[in-house]
Amino acid sequence: MSVTMEKLVALCKTRGFVFPGSDIYGGLANSWDYGPLGVELKNNVKQLWWKMFVQQRLDMVGIDAALIMNPKVWEASGHVATFTDPLVECKKCHERFRADHLVEKSTGMSFSDALSKFYQNQEGALKDPQVLSILGDITAGRPVINKETGEQIIVPKEEAAKFVLGGYKNVLFAIHAMLDMYKTKCPTCGSVDWSPPMNFNLMMKTWLGPKEDATAVAYFRPETAQAMFVDFPLVLQTSRKRVPFGIAQIGKAFRNEITPGNFIFRTREFEQMEIEYFVHPSQWETAFEEWRQRMHAWIDAVGIDAPRAHDVEIEAAERAHYSKRTVDIEFEYPFGQKELYGLAYRTDFDLSTHAKHSGANMTYTDPVTGEKYVPHVIEPSLGVDRTVLAVLLSAYDEEEAPTGEGGTETRVVLRLKPALAPIKAAILPLSKKDELTSVARPLAEKLAQRWRVDYDETQSIGKRYRRQDEIGTPFCVTVDFDSLNDQAVTVRARDSMKQERVPLAELEAYLSSKLNV
Amino acid sequence: MSVTMEKLVALCKTRGFVFPGSDIYGGLANSWDYGPLGVELKNNVKQLWWKMFVQQRLDMVGIDAALIMNPKVWEASGHVATFTDPLVECKKCHERFRADHLVEKSTGMSFSDALSKFYQNQEGALKDPQVLSILGDITAGRPVINKETGEQIIVPKEEAAKFVLGGYKNVLFAIHAMLDMYKTKCPTCGSVDWSPPMNFNLMMKTWLGPKEDATAVAYFRPETAQAMFVDFPLVLQTSRKRVPFGIAQIGKAFRNEITPGNFIFRTREFEQMEIEYFVHPSQWETAFEEWRQRMHAWIDAVGIDAPRAHDVEIEAAERAHYSKRTVDIEFEYPFGQKELYGLAYRTDFDLSTHAKHSGANMTYTDPVTGEKYVPHVIEPSLGVDRTVLAVLLSAYDEEEAPTGEGGTETRVVLRLKPALAPIKAAILPLSKKDELTSVARPLAEKLAQRWRVDYDETQSIGKRYRRQDEIGTPFCVTVDFDSLNDQAVTVRARDSMKQERVPLAELEAYLSSKLNV
Repeated sequence: MSVTMEKLVALCKTRGFVFPGSDIYGGLANSWDYGPLGVELKNNVKQLWWKMFVQQRLDMVGIDAALIMNPKVWEASGHVATFTDPLVECKKCHERFRADHLVEKSTGMSFSDALSKFYQNQEGALKDPQVLSILGDITAGRPVINKETGEQIIVPKEEAAKFVLGGYKNVLFAIHAMLDMYKTKCPTCGSVDWSPPMNFNLMMKTWLGPKEDATAVAYFRPETAQAMFVDFPLVLQTSRKRVPFGIAQIGKAFRNEITPGNFIFRTREFEQMEIEYFVHPSQWETAFEEWRQRMHAWIDAVGIDAPRAHDVEIEAAERAHYSKRTVDIEFEYPFGQKELYGLAYRTDFDLSTHAKHSGANMTYTDPVTGEKYVPHVIEPSLGVDRTVLAVLLSAYDEEEAPTGEGGTETRVVLRLKPALAPIKAAILPLSKKDELTSVARPLAEKLAQRWRVDYDETQSIGKRYRRQDEIGTPFCVTVDFDSLNDQAVTVRARDSMKQERVPLAELEAYLSSKLNV
Repeated sequence: MSVTMEKLVALCKTRGFVFPGSDIYGGLANSWDYGPLGVELKNNVKQLWWKMFVQQRLDMVGIDAALIMNPKVWEASGHVATFTDPLVECKKCHERFRADHLVEKSTGMSFSDALSKFYQNQEGALKDPQVLSILGDITAGRPVINKETGEQIIVPKEEAAKFVLGGYKNVLFAIHAMLDMYKTKCPTCGSVDWSPPMNFNLMMKTWLGPKEDATAVAYFRPETAQAMFVDFPLVLQTSRKRVPFGIAQIGKAFRNEITPGNFIFRTREFEQMEIEYFVHPSQWETAFEEWRQRMHAWIDAVGIDAPRAHDVEIEAAERAHYSKRTVDIEFEYPFGQKELYGLAYRTDFDLSTHAKHSGANMTYTDPVTGEKYVPHVIEPSLGVDRTVLAVLLSAYDEEEAPTGEGGTETRVVLRLKPALAPIKAAILPLSKKDELTSVARPLAEKLAQRWRVDYDETQSIGKRYRRQDEIGTPFCVTVDFDSLNDQAVTVRARDSMKQERVPLAELEAYLSSKLNV
């Protein structure tokens, strides 16, 4: 069944999966802390990913790079110049907003549709001084710059309009003109007077060392990927791997999003699980297809609802400049179908760019054929937090269940895969009487040597079952008065609610075979 | 045997444990990346810690909080005001330095010894305008502030000197006077003209949201601890734990150290494994002693050389203001005996401070006795990177070993505990011939389902053994031509170099019993 975000967020807070960050101080702009259950779930996700994509593959190695890299990395990668969102400031109240979001609100269109419409309307476009200047150049037969390739070209006069309105867009100008055209109001004060939009860099800036000046500026990485490219020569040298092989990394990345939101879907700090897989240029299509299949195998392994996950081919115009093919896997969240994972063919763009900027040799020599080439890259990119969100949304279920007193009630159950469940088993003495707890507690301590288990002796057994259902615990183990005689316990399975009597001596083996972890 | 830092750093780079960060761009001020082996070792450290201190204990839960917390957290904790190093700028070349380090270099004394000497010399101290002003107040019978307690007190005239020279120290003034007195030269330009020292805050600053102004300032956490205090009410509520219980967290912390150094010993970003253990005020001594023992059990578990780890009781004057008792565990690194871990009794300082600043209720009600109190805290604090460093230093060994051709050679061997070894077994076909690799490679793939293994078919078998010894692989499994007939392999143990013939069908069970992981 589909759960609303409100219900999921409430469950996460009440049960200790995910809390608002800095809660006692009123929180902090969509920051979230993983609580006692959330950290176990998240760690299980990360460990399973590492197991499937690093441990179990002879063609993969991991790294864990510093979050703060030399700023030259981000100059080379283009992040300093172009990793931006358009931002606009209200001249009256000086609040700042994502300009593209304001345009979307004003027009009721997607930003790219609004922009197309604007440029189809020549009147709008022809107000742009840069457009006019380029039209002038073309009319005079002077060379102009092709924005896509960076080359200077001569455009035939009869293609001037097509060139300008197609390839050449001064987006900041267009936004300003549209805000004016649609009389877009400031969401804070209602004014319609906007300063010229600017590009706002999303990297989080800080300073290293004792001076807060330009020479000391550093950035917290906005993605984990660049470390795999920068470390490629050292990894190649020390790991003795041969192409095709991949480098994997799990770690935090930071983006100063102007409007983060939707719980843990978009936050300013988030965790990525990324792979850069290096192949011979002729092999990219095969590798791309293989990784697409591996990503779907992962979706099955973590129990993300496959029918709600859709491969979306990203059109050339929408792709990042470095990518020759991108497939996003989108998921049907309660707030719409949006990106879950991405798979990109990045060509040799990154290695070649870093070779050029750093002077390092990024060429690989095939030890058999002797061929020298810069490897091409397939990048399966997964977000940890989005995985947790999609797993929770997929696992959440409600069903009518018997109360034990003849009626029924709604049972909330998280149908998590056992490998991901924060708690593998709950050990519950039927009552708080010493004779039961003196058996149950040592049993919990013994099982805890192997798995994360819960021990809970308060409240009625029914309530305790419901609580364990809500947090996705696969098995409840109840110690009752019969246990004292028959040396056995009742094991209740979360999904079927079936109960089975299992001898104490066989309990660990029983759980082990069912949990398979 | 003791290894030098030079040797260890070289091994780490050559074998892929730890590289310089952003290496192709000339690195970045003592930042380090964990390579393919380093990330496995570090993950094994973190997972073992989590297993010992969270999974296996019913009185512990984990969290994973956002790295960026509400700035009010750092105002309350005192970090905004006092988490500083003294910094001084050369008036001539405008380079900045840690002022206390300059004093140490000039005087050949520890900073606190130099400071004591300065204040024993009344002439020096009496140049301090603040000291003079306080002496004036005391002489006139006016109240003065006791720096330790913050209270206004009347000091008897006959105790004026003792009060001023004991409790009241204007450290920045003293540093400036000492730099002058000792004619301390600027390490860069040799000038002896220093600007007045200032307190330099070590927190890494950034901005959240679209404005780079004071209202948007945020800090990357300088320690993980505060999150456990801030989240205490939510954890208590959702986890249903009872005091005594603890909250554990593993995660990055950031300090803008002016002079980081000694490889991964002191870096600007580092990873902590911290526990805040909450107890009834009357129980702190018992809990302190228990945690001290648990920390030594950990040292044994990870194979840190126990005779080189020393408990050092920290004197009141040297302790942090919140601590009533601190024991550091120091380790004999090649660069001196320095802090490895810390164990502090923090009283109820943190919970009470956050209760005061946030208005949140931090009181615990004992469900049996009904007693209400703010729990006291014992904090075992461990650094991940220092653990990795101490583990590598302890594991490194060299010995004379037979070459196989009658002579001997120096064998480098990392005697890592199997649980920490990055690679559990290396699968080595004796030669690259198809008949051997066609057995060895599938064997490696099969074992990889369970453990991280290495597969290596190039170079002589002797060289491959040496490589595995150097990276601490407990077992080498050699597939030779006899394997084709007897369906068995040769298993060589890293430490003893003893070889044993093991049937293929029994190999996994054999390794499992020896590795015990």
